Amino acid sequence: MLFEIIDGGVLAARDFVAAAVAAGIKQDGVLDMVMIHSLRPAAAAATVTQNVFRAAPTYVTQEAVADGRARTIIVNSGNANCATGSRGMADARRMGELAAELTGVAVDDTIVCSTGRIGVPLPMDRVEAGIRKLATMLSREDPVTVARGILTTDTVEKISTTRFPVGDKTVHLGAICKGAGMICPNMATMLCFITTDLAITPELLNATLQEAVKCSFNCISVDGDMSTNDTVAILANGAAGNEPLTSPDDEGYAAFAAALNHVCRDLAQQIVRDGEEVTKFLEIRVTGAPDYATAHELARKLATYTLFKCAVFGGDFNWGRIAAALGSSLLPFDPLKTTITWQGIVAWKDGEPQPYDQAAAKAAASETDHLILIDLGAGEASCTYWTSDLTPGYVEYNTH
Amino acid sequence: MLFEIIDGGVLAARDFVAAAVAAGIKQDGVLDMVMIHSLRPAAAAATVTQNVFRAAPTYVTQEAVADGRARTIIVNSGNANCATGSRGMADARRMGELAAELTGVAVDDTIVCSTGRIGVPLPMDRVEAGIRKLATMLSREDPVTVARGILTTDTVEKISTTRFPVGDKTVHLGAICKGAGMICPNMATMLCFITTDLAITPELLNATLQEAVKCSFNCISVDGDMSTNDTVAILANGAAGNEPLTSPDDEGYAAFAAALNHVCRDLAQQIVRDGEEVTKFLEIRVTGAPDYATAHELARKLATYTLFKCAVFGGDFNWGRIAAALGSSLLPFDPLKTTITWQGIVAWKDGEPQPYDQAAAKAAASETDHLILIDLGAGEASCTYWTSDLTPGYVEYNTH
Repeated sequence: MLFEIIDGGVLAARDFVAAAVAAGIKQDGVLDMVMIHSLRPAAAAATVTQNVFRAAPTYVTQEAVADGRARTIIVNSGNANCATGSRGMADARRMGELAAELTGVAVDDTIVCSTGRIGVPLPMDRVEAGIRKLATMLSREDPVTVARGILTTDTVEKISTTRFPVGDKTVHLGAICKGAGMICPNMATMLCFITTDLAITPELLNATLQEAVKCSFNCISVDGDMSTNDTVAILANGAAGNEPLTSPDDEGYAAFAAALNHVCRDLAQQIVRDGEEVTKFLEIRVTGAPDYATAHELARKLATYTLFKCAVFGGDFNWGRIAAALGSSLLPFDPLKTTITWQGIVAWKDGEPQPYDQAAAKAAASETDHLILIDLGAGEASCTYWTSDLTPGYVEYNTH
Repeated sequence: MLFEIIDGGVLAARDFVAAAVAAGIKQDGVLDMVMIHSLRPAAAAATVTQNVFRAAPTYVTQEAVADGRARTIIVNSGNANCATGSRGMADARRMGELAAELTGVAVDDTIVCSTGRIGVPLPMDRVEAGIRKLATMLSREDPVTVARGILTTDTVEKISTTRFPVGDKTVHLGAICKGAGMICPNMATMLCFITTDLAITPELLNATLQEAVKCSFNCISVDGDMSTNDTVAILANGAAGNEPLTSPDDEGYAAFAAALNHVCRDLAQQIVRDGEEVTKFLEIRVTGAPDYATAHELARKLATYTLFKCAVFGGDFNWGRIAAALGSSLLPFDPLKTTITWQGIVAWKDGEPQPYDQAAAKAAASETDHLILIDLGAGEASCTYWTSDLTPGYVEYNTH
């Protein structure tokens, strides 16, 4: 399906305002706080990490969207506010209270997110000053700066924006997100904020978000490490004026679901491409699986198998490590029915290694973008997963 | 418990002979084949990898020990004979047949093992010539050379030998093994060969081996990658002349079980210390767990969490990554009851981060050997796990 690509990020949708500021949480005047606000009431949904040691703000965010409504999002980077104990929970609540007060919304209409180092208390004097400044700066002017404000180790802003018709109305959908390490979400994702001027019920919005996250942010890995702070949140304020969507059968719902899937997949792939010090981008497609869970787990196993990722970095067509990775899943697939194809070269089929041209394999392995097909020959289910190589630079980068 | 450390490896036990040879599977005249043989009938047990894509020889080994008896072990390094299809299975059987013929034992009394690159057929002309030569070289002379013959990327031989009394007899127990990459065994281990002159029933030997493997080779990780070829095999030929052990209640059984545990743990730790390009050695102890499975899984999660291993390499006291790793298990432990202690420094307790001296933490993080204690405050079960750091050198090393 083709999508209309437009500019605007989280400010493409009508009646949203936002701002970014350097509050001094990070050093050297780098942007480290963002506020996004809907000028009118909005349906809201969010999904947060399942990590047992998850951060304080993820609890505040879950409370905020529990009634299906929210209007203001307040975010800081440079500090995860995770494993910070009772003080961390109070700090997260204080961030939400202050943002709510200054934007004139109820306390439980404010989503709070943090990202950065774990185990260090927030510098609340700077955070509070940052929130006060943000509230005075809200505008529709600069979506790229807003996208930059949530980054940590990312090297580029991650923005995806589209529009689609619902009845005779045009609906805008835009999102921003951040990577770029501790990336292996599970039933959740990294920080991602989505705005739309669609009118939709909170229940349908939430169901559509969960489905979109499942095949986008839950299908990527940079380092196999699930984070403590992953959050995706969407606000839908209805400013497009469409007849509110209440059911998957409504006219325009399919266009919305497809657009949301597109934006989430687009951003998920942007995260992998900007993974810390990565040099290769891999798409892994597992097909012929008995069910989605099997396809997803096999793809994930391959995407997180250290030795395979080292071989990809080195440009070594070491397909045997693909076999080892798949087998390490302990899932009951049949190697005799499995076909392994890497950059169009069939390496394993019908229970036998397949002959291939060594020079062609060497050339294929040295390319930047890789497509790896795993067909299990055992059903109709499939999963597409994106990952990167593992590099010495990644290890060096994360020694501090 | 203290164990008597003696020399001898797999030749410490009476009536075992062995040899190693450079058969030309590896280049540059490096040793790449080993044969170990019992001069008398022996009880035997083995455990092999659960990897679904496991190598041909692991099937032959399972068949060999199915009746609880075996006498000859034939091993090659430099080629895994994995993902080699029908030819690979025929080659593994041929290795066993030839070794059996030349050592005068039944075909189903021969254990076959391979280790090395996956997906490449064995050079059987060289392998057969190697087996013929080995059969003429068998002696009790040089256990260190035998240990060297099974190595791949290891930098040192891995040998553990002890002896213990059973009644009025002295029993010898010796073992050799290899690492050093693709190390994260599960219900199995890397190549490890154990000989003893104990007299014991096959059933009791097998039960004792399974228990020893569980808390040794199944509790280590270098890179989190389960291999296709992991095998531990033990031969017990009864040459010590003790009254055969038939029950855990027999006199001397406790000494044997403790000695076998000691040898397996000793070798498991040797594998981690010699992990590919590693610079740090970590012991992770999870205590206060509701059951062993929970303790083991939390330890494994921490031992394979990429960002934590990068921080250890860098000497960064980043205990927040320990919290993130534990939480990523999705197990229902309670962070409020959990205590995290790293090199004696309590970092997290009673739901709060604990103050510590920054200079002391920096000094602790820069040490070579690390002890990390995770107490869950939720039961009596525990698990001790060993792992290494992740280094840029490891990634470089595995690019080919």
